[in-house]
Amino acid sequence: MIHPTAIISAGARIGAGVRIGPYTIIHENVEIGENTEIGSHCEIGCPTMLSDGRTLKIGKNSLVRSHSIFYEGSEFGEQLVTGHRVTVRELTIAGLNLQIGTLSDVQGNCRIGDYVRLHSNVHVGQRSAIGNFVWLFPYVVLTNDPHPPSEVCIGAKISDYAAIATMSVILPGVTVGERSLVAAHSCVKADVASDTVVGGSPAKFLCATSRIRLQDGTERNAYPWTAHFHRGYPEAMVKRWTEQIRSVDSSDSTTLR
Amino acid sequence: MIHPTAIISAGARIGAGVRIGPYTIIHENVEIGENTEIGSHCEIGCPTMLSDGRTLKIGKNSLVRSHSIFYEGSEFGEQLVTGHRVTVRELTIAGLNLQIGTLSDVQGNCRIGDYVRLHSNVHVGQRSAIGNFVWLFPYVVLTNDPHPPSEVCIGAKISDYAAIATMSVILPGVTVGERSLVAAHSCVKADVASDTVVGGSPAKFLCATSRIRLQDGTERNAYPWTAHFHRGYPEAMVKRWTEQIRSVDSSDSTTLR
Amino acid sequence: MIHPTAIISAGARIGAGVRIGPYTIIHENVEIGENTEIGSHCEIGCPTMLSDGRTLKIGKNSLVRSHSIFYEGSEFGEQLVTGHRVTVRELTIAGLNLQIGTLSDVQGNCRIGDYVRLHSNVHVGQRSAIGNFVWLFPYVVLTNDPHPPSEVCIGAKISDYAAIATMSVILPGVTVGERSLVAAHSCVKADVASDTVVGGSPAKFLCATSRIRLQDGTERNAYPWTAHFHRGYPEAMVKRWTEQIRSVDSSDSTTLR
Repeated sequence: MIHPTAIISAGARIGAGVRIGPYTIIHENVEIGENTEIGSHCEIGCPTMLSDGRTLKIGKNSLVRSHSIFYEGSEFGEQLVTGHRVTVRELTIAGLNLQIGTLSDVQGNCRIGDYVRLHSNVHVGQRSAIGNFVWLFPYVVLTNDPHPPSEVCIGAKISDYAAIATMSVILPGVTVGERSLVAAHSCVKADVASDTVVGGSPAKFLCATSRIRLQDGTERNAYPWTAHFHRGYPEAMVKRWTEQIRSVDSSDSTTLR
Repeated sequence: MIHPTAIISAGARIGAGVRIGPYTIIHENVEIGENTEIGSHCEIGCPTMLSDGRTLKIGKNSLVRSHSIFYEGSEFGEQLVTGHRVTVRELTIAGLNLQIGTLSDVQGNCRIGDYVRLHSNVHVGQRSAIGNFVWLFPYVVLTNDPHPPSEVCIGAKISDYAAIATMSVILPGVTVGERSLVAAHSCVKADVASDTVVGGSPAKFLCATSRIRLQDGTERNAYPWTAHFHRGYPEAMVKRWTEQIRSVDSSDSTTLR
Repeated sequence: MIHPTAIISAGARIGAGVRIGPYTIIHENVEIGENTEIGSHCEIGCPTMLSDGRTLKIGKNSLVRSHSIFYEGSEFGEQLVTGHRVTVRELTIAGLNLQIGTLSDVQGNCRIGDYVRLHSNVHVGQRSAIGNFVWLFPYVVLTNDPHPPSEVCIGAKISDYAAIATMSVILPGVTVGERSLVAAHSCVKADVASDTVVGGSPAKFLCATSRIRLQDGTERNAYPWTAHFHRGYPEAMVKRWTEQIRSVDSSDSTTLR
């Protein structure tokens, strides 16, 4: 289960049932939960003076795809899933079932909630704060320096259920509100209120998210996306989401009567 | 010709004269055409349940540069050429002499014609349809979800001879017409007519492509680019292109008389 | 110090005290200065017909992090530092202490001065000219073809102390002046004067850099950044910068009296 060409440091704590692919390097200060799979050509637990000596912890039942690089000092809950060639620096703390797409780069010192999805080639700057159930799509960048280069580092804050579409930049210190959508190719300079759609460069208010309809012939609301997008979430969670939506729908009808 | 450190699955079908570099992994469900070269540190034919069991086929006389990753279930014609660290997922079908630049990511389920060039760090979303002789320049993204996240997946369509310049995003379902140019740093929300230049965010009509002159002192037309850019195309094709241009030129003169 | 799995060509000239990580390949036409460290899974000195046979030279006391790829024919001064998975092609000449961030791609035939910092995922097109002390932030692209595809290649020029913020594109032949700032998510089509801030797509003049204040509570000027950002520069240089600023400040006061 551990390929003979993998190089495993004596100090690394490897859980039961862990699989490690060819040509992968596991450094000393690493703890990998049981039944996790690490692909080929990875480097896991790169030493750095910036880690304060903390251990890289990858939760159980995780999947780290090939060519990925993790530094020591970060911690990931169970069921972490990565694409290929992801880079994750030190002192980032993430919750359950984080998904990090191919080529994405998490720069360190970030806080990331549960069930967050980073698509391909996302760049998360240091000190970013990402809530739960957030989606960052390809080539999104969260920045942190208001006047680069400087020693000032003010991360962006992305609230629960927010989605940032392809190739958008979030400027330092900006908060994107809950369940909001940033349209593709936007540059967000000011805070985004909850349940709103913004877009453009600089991004401006476009509409309430309730104005967006699903383009699947049903005319249902596209947001909150929890009403219709359920792939990869636990069954109990989807049930709760569905009940919340029903409850909102019936209160809406009541209001309308 | 196959480096002793390369790991070749017993089931892989490797053509005559194939060269495989150090530390590369070739999985089972792979067919590599003769005289193809695979660089070092690659992973070729990664298994996936999404492949329907189909074989990864790489045509003969191809060159896959180091650190590249291909999944099983895609097919490439002869003379595929890749840069380094490309990622190609399952069920993509591509024609002759596709070139995929360093860091580019083809997400799977795409259709790609002949002689297409993807430059560096291009992201081709699932279900994209790319014609023949198309050019996608660095950091171009073809998207597919009109209201992310959702289960709706509507790929973009890029027609023959079109060129999309650096860091432009093509939104879901958009068709870019034949021989058109999308200017750099654009976000294309609506279809682009043939032989036109669009740009901006959202992209707007700028001019006919016939208005763009080559900045090489000759004042020749820059588009269609087939009139002047011939590097890497077969001689017979270049001859045909040149004759077409001459024929258009002389019909223009006739009109003017 | 050279890992037993590293593959070192007989012709490579490796200085004293050089460390080379596991699974790294060093090709023939390479010269590595003393005390330099090359991480794991690298490919150093890839042969290419475009190098005119020139040797890849990496100066002493350098650090090349894992998964990086360098072609033969480029030259780097002392104290080169790279992130992971950088790609550097042939015939680029760079000065002292260049830093190249993770995933960045230098396309070749570039001129780069001393103490330049390329952050993550920067794309430097062929024939770019970058001065001294320049900063390029994540996802910045320097382009070179005014009407792609064509055989015309006119690199951008970035002058000393200039900073280009995240996800900006510099169009072919554009000069960005000394100490200027290009705001994030901009597309720069025209030359940028020294000591100015430009932004937008197309980028327009926003203000003099002297109008930007540090957001650290001090109300000091943010530009030139040499007045306050000193991390990683030699002590003597920082001393000179500080004296220059004091001298400007006192001459300003004189003028005002």
